[in-house]
Amino acid sequence: MAAEPNPNEPSSYDDDPAFPLHRGGKLEMRSTIPVRNKDDLSLAYTPGVARVCTAIADHPELAYDYTWTSRVVAVVTDGTAVLGLGDIGPAASMPVMEGKSLLFKEFADVDSVPIALSTTDVDEIVDTVIRMAPSFGGINLEDISAPRCFEIEDRLRAALDIPVFHDDQHGTAIVALAALKNAARLVGKPLSELRAVVAGAGASGIAVSKMLIEGGIGDIALSDSKGLIYQGRDGLNPVKTKIAEITNRSCLKGSTEEALRGADVFIGLSGGTVQESCVATMSEHAIVFALSNPTPEVHPEVALRHAKVVATGRSDYPNQINNVLAFPGIFRGALDVRASAITEGMKLAAANALADIVGDDLKPDYVIPGPFDDRVAPAVTAAVAEQARKDGVNRI
Amino acid sequence: MAAEPNPNEPSSYDDDPAFPLHRGGKLEMRSTIPVRNKDDLSLAYTPGVARVCTAIADHPELAYDYTWTSRVVAVVTDGTAVLGLGDIGPAASMPVMEGKSLLFKEFADVDSVPIALSTTDVDEIVDTVIRMAPSFGGINLEDISAPRCFEIEDRLRAALDIPVFHDDQHGTAIVALAALKNAARLVGKPLSELRAVVAGAGASGIAVSKMLIEGGIGDIALSDSKGLIYQGRDGLNPVKTKIAEITNRSCLKGSTEEALRGADVFIGLSGGTVQESCVATMSEHAIVFALSNPTPEVHPEVALRHAKVVATGRSDYPNQINNVLAFPGIFRGALDVRASAITEGMKLAAANALADIVGDDLKPDYVIPGPFDDRVAPAVTAAVAEQARKDGVNRI
Repeated sequence: MAAEPNPNEPSSYDDDPAFPLHRGGKLEMRSTIPVRNKDDLSLAYTPGVARVCTAIADHPELAYDYTWTSRVVAVVTDGTAVLGLGDIGPAASMPVMEGKSLLFKEFADVDSVPIALSTTDVDEIVDTVIRMAPSFGGINLEDISAPRCFEIEDRLRAALDIPVFHDDQHGTAIVALAALKNAARLVGKPLSELRAVVAGAGASGIAVSKMLIEGGIGDIALSDSKGLIYQGRDGLNPVKTKIAEITNRSCLKGSTEEALRGADVFIGLSGGTVQESCVATMSEHAIVFALSNPTPEVHPEVALRHAKVVATGRSDYPNQINNVLAFPGIFRGALDVRASAITEGMKLAAANALADIVGDDLKPDYVIPGPFDDRVAPAVTAAVAEQARKDGVNRI
Repeated sequence: MAAEPNPNEPSSYDDDPAFPLHRGGKLEMRSTIPVRNKDDLSLAYTPGVARVCTAIADHPELAYDYTWTSRVVAVVTDGTAVLGLGDIGPAASMPVMEGKSLLFKEFADVDSVPIALSTTDVDEIVDTVIRMAPSFGGINLEDISAPRCFEIEDRLRAALDIPVFHDDQHGTAIVALAALKNAARLVGKPLSELRAVVAGAGASGIAVSKMLIEGGIGDIALSDSKGLIYQGRDGLNPVKTKIAEITNRSCLKGSTEEALRGADVFIGLSGGTVQESCVATMSEHAIVFALSNPTPEVHPEVALRHAKVVATGRSDYPNQINNVLAFPGIFRGALDVRASAITEGMKLAAANALADIVGDDLKPDYVIPGPFDDRVAPAVTAAVAEQARKDGVNRI
């Protein structure tokens, strides 16, 4: 691994292999048909193309068959919550958005276009995405800060008849649920009897909590920078007020650390830290998902002294909770059946398909497949497409 | 050629080779770098990508070097003036926009993304394009109806520091000027002594007239559906009022046909018709560009009975005035020097470069190169880049 370069020192960029790799960007557009001569041109462009346009104008559903819109996803950001870097703006977010497009293509042959917006206003983002939607078969929202991301996604889902999916929320939630199902199976505790503590009430903390509840977990206490979230706590925003209604049944108050005493599961999505002494107070066969990147809330080797199963967001430790296990197959499955939305059922189906891949190979350092397991995308794709049909959101 | 299918009869689509060719669309996104294993992933995506993002956040100009934005153009339409089909809406316009992207790539290796908008409101289009602009190195406006297209382009040019170019205006104008320069040379008339009649005061009619004036033509009379445009005529919109100030010096009134008597040049961009008897009244060695597609204002063989040089918009006759001769090289040249705009000088340089390719091979049926002449894009690219430097709009 190259030494970490000083980002304020341009001369050091080329010593870091990430920079030469990124030179010129990571994407290109290609034509799928030949244009060698006038005959090719007269079919792919005028006059032949006019007949295709006329057919779509008369029968709008033909746009699915005769344009690339049914195959292409917009990866939309405003650059406000990029990786662990925060609000770095649209231009600086582009390498991540291009990376996302690259992963879509490589893992599930989904074409996508990165769109970084120069506005952080919720109304303007919603309007902009609605206006560009005729060009796309799906919208992947990315790295938009909470709580704005919740309203943006909700309004776009209501306005559009194509899948809208905020990956930072649901991608993480799907993979975490899959891993937790397997971890619970390993330690022999039913999901419905687990008590979990989720640290962090941003996009992923909220979404993971909702997903675990839908997945049937016993109880969750969620914390933010002010401590545990409970009904009636001062200063809750609307999203936290709502999550307080469906979590923390015993109305625990106080710190994350206090809630960890006797808890079965810890899920860190906060960027904070948890002391070893707190992990030691968890129940027997505890499950620790320390998902902050690049620095987990507790070092995985430390956590393993007290927990049975440990997962992180990092590729250099076992059990990586990596969104790439979910989003490529989810969109591939949704596009394959021309789904009008991604339902809760489709997300659960994705989590189940992902968990099932582990099967009988289940062990403490293998509760979730690795990102390069080539069974993953096809399994998620098939499960999502099948559930879309069951939920009646398919169009073919 | 296949029989023209009935667009209201879906079963006939597959008898038309344009339809199977368009199935699934004409574009795909590709990754330019490998993602084979965790090491690749850790550079192209997290954690390596974070170092590139941080560098761009600290030094915004690095976005040109380390993202694809400096290589990629948005092809933006609202679907209101698509080919000769008119206002067919965004979905039905997509095959043309994809076709445009395909031509950008094939002719000048310009990556581009078709964006069809679901609004026809000028303010909304302007706002939308400004918001998505951080994702692109240039904006090609396409098939937006007049007079809205003028305001949209003007406002975007003022707001953005990347090239904004409405191809229906300037692409046509550049190629028409190139062809007219050669035609004038052939018939031995100086440009400054030519009197031209331009039928049609839409996007291309206005832009061609402006370009010919900048190119040094003697005088132009422009007509719309109400006849010749002159200063003080009733019911002129702001764009026509402005063009009236710089055209029609002799203040001709009446019909296109009347103005043609003794004229040296006719340029048809109206979709209307001109009778043979009117062409016959033009000056000796007349020049006729009957550019409406698919039906020229006067059939080229008929026009040739009276005119020395005839050009059309069609690929099946000589002297095709085809935008593809201009826009790929113009954007390639502008992107190559990271131009902040496309200046009038760059457009004139493109026209001159295009005209010069014909050189000593000039003859009545060869006043402009064909679309597959592989000298065209490099010559236009080089001329545009050089002029950008002279005009000081280059950034490298």
